[in-house]
Amino acid sequence: MNSKMKALVKERPEAGFTLAEVQVPPIGPTDVLIHVEKAGVCGTDWHIYSWDKWAQARVKPPLTIGHEFMGTVAAVGDAVRAVRVGDRVSAEGHIADLTCLLCRTGQAHICERVKIIGVDCDGAFAEYIAMPEYNVWKLDPAIPDEFAAIFDPLGNAVHTVMAAGVSIKSVVITGVGSIGLMAIPVARAAGASSVYAIDVNPAKLDLAKRLGADETFLATQDGLVEDIKGRTGGDGVDVLLEMSGSGIAIDSGLQMVRNGGTAALLGIPSDNVSINLAERIIFKGLTVLGINGRRMFETWYQTQALVKSGRVDLRPIITHVLPYTEYDRAFELMRSGEAAKIVLDFKGDLA
Amino acid sequence: MNSKMKALVKERPEAGFTLAEVQVPPIGPTDVLIHVEKAGVCGTDWHIYSWDKWAQARVKPPLTIGHEFMGTVAAVGDAVRAVRVGDRVSAEGHIADLTCLLCRTGQAHICERVKIIGVDCDGAFAEYIAMPEYNVWKLDPAIPDEFAAIFDPLGNAVHTVMAAGVSIKSVVITGVGSIGLMAIPVARAAGASSVYAIDVNPAKLDLAKRLGADETFLATQDGLVEDIKGRTGGDGVDVLLEMSGSGIAIDSGLQMVRNGGTAALLGIPSDNVSINLAERIIFKGLTVLGINGRRMFETWYQTQALVKSGRVDLRPIITHVLPYTEYDRAFELMRSGEAAKIVLDFKGDLA
Amino acid sequence: MNSKMKALVKERPEAGFTLAEVQVPPIGPTDVLIHVEKAGVCGTDWHIYSWDKWAQARVKPPLTIGHEFMGTVAAVGDAVRAVRVGDRVSAEGHIADLTCLLCRTGQAHICERVKIIGVDCDGAFAEYIAMPEYNVWKLDPAIPDEFAAIFDPLGNAVHTVMAAGVSIKSVVITGVGSIGLMAIPVARAAGASSVYAIDVNPAKLDLAKRLGADETFLATQDGLVEDIKGRTGGDGVDVLLEMSGSGIAIDSGLQMVRNGGTAALLGIPSDNVSINLAERIIFKGLTVLGINGRRMFETWYQTQALVKSGRVDLRPIITHVLPYTEYDRAFELMRSGEAAKIVLDFKGDLA
Amino acid sequence: MNSKMKALVKERPEAGFTLAEVQVPPIGPTDVLIHVEKAGVCGTDWHIYSWDKWAQARVKPPLTIGHEFMGTVAAVGDAVRAVRVGDRVSAEGHIADLTCLLCRTGQAHICERVKIIGVDCDGAFAEYIAMPEYNVWKLDPAIPDEFAAIFDPLGNAVHTVMAAGVSIKSVVITGVGSIGLMAIPVARAAGASSVYAIDVNPAKLDLAKRLGADETFLATQDGLVEDIKGRTGGDGVDVLLEMSGSGIAIDSGLQMVRNGGTAALLGIPSDNVSINLAERIIFKGLTVLGINGRRMFETWYQTQALVKSGRVDLRPIITHVLPYTEYDRAFELMRSGEAAKIVLDFKGDLA
Repeated sequence: MNSKMKALVKERPEAGFTLAEVQVPPIGPTDVLIHVEKAGVCGTDWHIYSWDKWAQARVKPPLTIGHEFMGTVAAVGDAVRAVRVGDRVSAEGHIADLTCLLCRTGQAHICERVKIIGVDCDGAFAEYIAMPEYNVWKLDPAIPDEFAAIFDPLGNAVHTVMAAGVSIKSVVITGVGSIGLMAIPVARAAGASSVYAIDVNPAKLDLAKRLGADETFLATQDGLVEDIKGRTGGDGVDVLLEMSGSGIAIDSGLQMVRNGGTAALLGIPSDNVSINLAERIIFKGLTVLGINGRRMFETWYQTQALVKSGRVDLRPIITHVLPYTEYDRAFELMRSGEAAKIVLDFKGDLA
Repeated sequence: MNSKMKALVKERPEAGFTLAEVQVPPIGPTDVLIHVEKAGVCGTDWHIYSWDKWAQARVKPPLTIGHEFMGTVAAVGDAVRAVRVGDRVSAEGHIADLTCLLCRTGQAHICERVKIIGVDCDGAFAEYIAMPEYNVWKLDPAIPDEFAAIFDPLGNAVHTVMAAGVSIKSVVITGVGSIGLMAIPVARAAGASSVYAIDVNPAKLDLAKRLGADETFLATQDGLVEDIKGRTGGDGVDVLLEMSGSGIAIDSGLQMVRNGGTAALLGIPSDNVSINLAERIIFKGLTVLGINGRRMFETWYQTQALVKSGRVDLRPIITHVLPYTEYDRAFELMRSGEAAKIVLDFKGDLA
Repeated sequence: MNSKMKALVKERPEAGFTLAEVQVPPIGPTDVLIHVEKAGVCGTDWHIYSWDKWAQARVKPPLTIGHEFMGTVAAVGDAVRAVRVGDRVSAEGHIADLTCLLCRTGQAHICERVKIIGVDCDGAFAEYIAMPEYNVWKLDPAIPDEFAAIFDPLGNAVHTVMAAGVSIKSVVITGVGSIGLMAIPVARAAGASSVYAIDVNPAKLDLAKRLGADETFLATQDGLVEDIKGRTGGDGVDVLLEMSGSGIAIDSGLQMVRNGGTAALLGIPSDNVSINLAERIIFKGLTVLGINGRRMFETWYQTQALVKSGRVDLRPIITHVLPYTEYDRAFELMRSGEAAKIVLDFKGDLA
Repeated sequence: MNSKMKALVKERPEAGFTLAEVQVPPIGPTDVLIHVEKAGVCGTDWHIYSWDKWAQARVKPPLTIGHEFMGTVAAVGDAVRAVRVGDRVSAEGHIADLTCLLCRTGQAHICERVKIIGVDCDGAFAEYIAMPEYNVWKLDPAIPDEFAAIFDPLGNAVHTVMAAGVSIKSVVITGVGSIGLMAIPVARAAGASSVYAIDVNPAKLDLAKRLGADETFLATQDGLVEDIKGRTGGDGVDVLLEMSGSGIAIDSGLQMVRNGGTAALLGIPSDNVSINLAERIIFKGLTVLGINGRRMFETWYQTQALVKSGRVDLRPIITHVLPYTEYDRAFELMRSGEAAKIVLDFKGDLA
């Protein structure tokens, strides 16, 4: 294999990426080298591309970007157990230390020393990426490449839905960006009896409807809380899936949940949120769950089962597949709101 | 039975109570009339006594006050099933409608139409109180009167501890007012492996120590979060029991909990609380539970088991037992911080 | 109202029922009198009709039979709270004492002193039945009469499915009598990722397929355990729903479940079952759940949500609706295996 | 390090062990070589020693025996992450494949391809043992060697207690061999409100009492089921911990559990058990849990917390500490019932 490869790199602390030639990453005895074929573009990538406040505080250039991907195994370390050269794989992008209390008790997704590929260490927008075997997910042949490339965000949706528990329950989703959109067919397939979607963007609500939402609502609608409660006999929904990170959405979402219900928070607010804890959570006897990453690897099994059975169809969400060299166009499509999910193709270029 | 009785009444919208003569309450076919013997004084009673903002907004005089009590059944309605005249009883003070979704699914403690005795309808600081049979708890003969009189707040502590789950877990309690104090022996008896107590009041911390806290901390101590985390190998405690209602305590308490841990919120903040949801709850994968009242009647069975076995001894907490006619002195003792828990004796007067 | 009514009565300890004229049952202050309109015929009724060993040991003639029904409220007791004359209702047929530990902690469905209508006290194959208000379920107008009449067995299916938990899980159902059949669309709607059905009767397996089973299997097929395991990558299914009561089915069903999986047992074996506990349950780390009745009233809410949304369609299961006077024919259809579920119509006769 | 070491070996398919000189085991890149210091003797070892039917079917000589132990790390493989030479350690004796569904979802303790040291591959009754780093447990300095040597069976007790959940619950333990005995202080520390112990051996019951059982009962006592139920108000205990493997104990134990209660099965019956599933499990709505091994590594954290805090004191259980060369005497003490738990000392000999 060549010792050099192409990669999308944040070279300097400023906006934009560079299509650079860099070293193919070395692998240790328990690592796997993966030839990247397709990779999803995430809002996080946009933060780094545009070099906003969060990115400036977190990312240390130079760094290869990207964390959603699939590809083929090109090489394996000496102590690798079950992954073989040629295996078609995706990978969990949260690299946990595997030695702490959390990693040792089935909660590696919230390991305190986690490193995220494409954020804290080199990522997947490259011809090759090195990953610990532990993180590698062997793909079922029935999973199309484009879907496999976005198992990471789909896994966020699955993790949120399954942590909340939606079987024969009514569900409201606040915020239907790409993960919120994915949560709709996931919730339906997981047994939700009704799914209501709320957003500020009418185009996203149209997509939500196509993906199986029973009803959709503009976040700005008057009397929205009472409207949603009215659809559940006045009690409120059983489950809130909060995927916007908006303080206003969180407050109104908590009001929509019935006493004794569950709110799963995945959206990341950029600032503190002021909450009436007494009325919104305590008196109501609510259960509020913080959701981070994907359970390793329960979420991955669930994600694969959903996609493989056809119960979750991601085609309406993947609006664009582009050669990776067109990354600037990808970020422009994302910025404009024109795209839902964009997948970059690395394979074509390599063939 | 006399048609008139003595009662402590909020007669007018102003500070103070009146020792008045009022009608013995009538009972319906499914109700029970209870001759009150002992009653606990709660912070809520102090709010109503002092007629603060909360009380002015919630309470409609004239109203008999008091919600923690025990006594003897004096009369029963025609359709009462299992309670008999002469039974020694306490009672759940949250009167639920028993017909809504929550009441019909074992969650009557968070019924939306709940009425609280001594707050929304006539209460227990009186010679007699009428209660639905559903709410009545028949006391085991082994339970002393004083303890039975405060099953309501003890039940709050038990509910919080059991909702969080403390078996072989490390626990921090923020705020050791009377319920926070009770939570200490309850958590120990329920299997906590360590219990840390935090408060602003050194006298309360002394009492916390006597009740079984492993270590106690002034809330104002420098580096308190790191100190607590250090006691758990740096990870943080498994469980936070928040019993102060203080925004500062909630923020530092959430920091003390390990990733993947549980925070049970019982203390009622008087205002909105500004929370860094991303860092305190979402990235940590925390479970946050709002706690209200007592589960009917799982909490009561647990409470009785704890007291009966002697594993929870309330004697250090009940600092005063006074004739009910000394209610002004009781509230003065409460206001001054001199008392932990005060029990009023109605029996002596009736003999 | 007339003081006399028609009823199907087991008059003497021998086979058959009598269409008799009996007293309209009196109601107490917390009871409701219901004018029966439609009633489901259950295997239990057949046991009593044919007067088999179980029936001889349990049933004390004379007794009005029947426990699955719906109708309209004709009268209410003085202490009834929420049910009104004219309400369209079904009812939970397990009359619990409402005063024991289990009833007081949300587990009335396993009250030790439960009485079952039509088995331990007069039942629903009559023009009128008296029920405690507690047991009455007010029907949503969207629920068709025939479906409402069989909420009792449908609730058994829902209880079993929801106790096991099937959201994004693979499920095998052993035994597709009427409850096993109902469990198929219920499991699908509750989020099962795959549903396999097993029975000895090919006709029932055809019906299972129509109701949404992914695949069906004759119980007598060679290598059945390995066949089922092969469909789940060799691990075995996540969940067994045992609805046959057959010792052989229980043994093979337990073998089909993966390590760490769940087996919910609803079918009632007529004799002891010999189990290799070490290999079938202990080494596998299985969770085995005994299922009885329906949770009051969580199961009823879930059942109604499923039927109302159209996600569970009972039409293929209700093979016959007959005037109640044709009860002999109904039992003949049941005996012959020609019928899946038979509903008796009491309304027509009363008009 | 020497290439030869002493070990207790089952050399031939016949009764007895041989103190042999064998190769020090090699280690791979992710393995650790541990210098054994103390090792516990288990009933499993006795089965192999006496070469009973089970041993003949399972064990393939020649094999080094023993699976409960602690020692010091003597060497580590190149890809070992967190374990260092000189670390004081114990280890999980179930070697899972770490690549299957169960291992990848936090359930490695029930991996289908598990190998048990001292049974399926060379064990710990030797100067050195090689273990995967994954299996190694670094000991807290506060844990005495003897206690650390029996974390394996203590972990079985902890796993059983924690899977059942005993916080503020009544518990009956059927069978107080060494694991049943350990379960007594574990259940108390985990919050059990009462612990009843049953066995056929009065000496073991005496020990049970010393370890904190509230009451002890001979299994042969007349009316035992009703006696136990009477101690819980007639309802039955909340939790059964079955640690005898006796069919009779399982049947009577299941009868002692209240409706809706939990039975955790750890004891391994040598034959099929005939169970009245209808009366013992289904109608009662019981939850029955098969328990195997120890959760990796939740159980180990819990075990260490219990021992470190002093809440579980194993001194009364460890009746003998012998030089490992006295293994014949150890098995004679075990066979005679004179010993509860025997620890073999390998360190003295090696010094």
